[in-house]
Amino acid sequence: MSLDPLSLAFDAAREAAALGEVPVGAAVVRDGVVLAVAGNRPRTLHDPTAHAEILAIRAACAAIGDERLVGCDLYVTLEPCAMCAGAISFARIRRLYYGAADPKGGGVEHGPRVFNQPTCHHAPEVYGGFREAEAATLLRAFFQARRVDGG
Amino acid sequence: MSLDPLSLAFDAAREAAALGEVPVGAAVVRDGVVLAVAGNRPRTLHDPTAHAEILAIRAACAAIGDERLVGCDLYVTLEPCAMCAGAISFARIRRLYYGAADPKGGGVEHGPRVFNQPTCHHAPEVYGGFREAEAATLLRAFFQARRVDGG
Repeated sequence: MSLDPLSLAFDAAREAAALGEVPVGAAVVRDGVVLAVAGNRPRTLHDPTAHAEILAIRAACAAIGDERLVGCDLYVTLEPCAMCAGAISFARIRRLYYGAADPKGGGVEHGPRVFNQPTCHHAPEVYGGFREAEAATLLRAFFQARRVDGG
Repeated sequence: MSLDPLSLAFDAAREAAALGEVPVGAAVVRDGVVLAVAGNRPRTLHDPTAHAEILAIRAACAAIGDERLVGCDLYVTLEPCAMCAGAISFARIRRLYYGAADPKGGGVEHGPRVFNQPTCHHAPEVYGGFREAEAATLLRAFFQARRVDGG
């Protein structure tokens, strides 16, 4: 276990994989304090909205008792999808740091590019490509194992 | 109180307004059975993801113990945003019926047009414009009252 936020997100991604979830993890940080860490849980929780980012944002909001995470940064192992990008905007996340780009399902640099729309009321600063190879390897290993299992 | 799904969604929207929430309501229906009804609750729950659609989808998934709402339809008083459109896609909602269009914040017919992206893996059939004047009046009255209150 490491204590930097991105490493905590990667740990959460690996825990998600161990549960049969797509390996994605996220952490919310404010002023150097980790407010929440979460891994992907749609299958486990029977909740299609239970992406790592959504769970981390909800937990951080609960921790501070506010619907807005002003001054908070989100670290996530994969480019967020449109749903999570919307949640990041509503939560007023200051900076988004992510690992691998996701050309197939991403909603930040791909597809709907949520933060680039004129109708987006708050866009975070976006920084991608952190530990990209590690994030991509984690996902690839997961999907290869699922194909072998017929899962 | 009426029992048709869109009327239940409108009732939930009015309940949301009474709590100081933006008046939006949603209902999930399968085979004529209402699985869940919810109103907007971000302020009350300190949760930026607690839009009516997200809460209704999560409740319906909990009710049937599945992360996918196959064969289910969603009724909502306002055009869903990008976050909710993403959740609708992941939940495999069959048909989306909505009231007023939302040029400022909608993500279906406006802005990111989530379902029209080649990266969208499941798009529902979309039908808009139901009781549009009623939905728009509800929202306008809410925002006018907030301006008078300085809220």
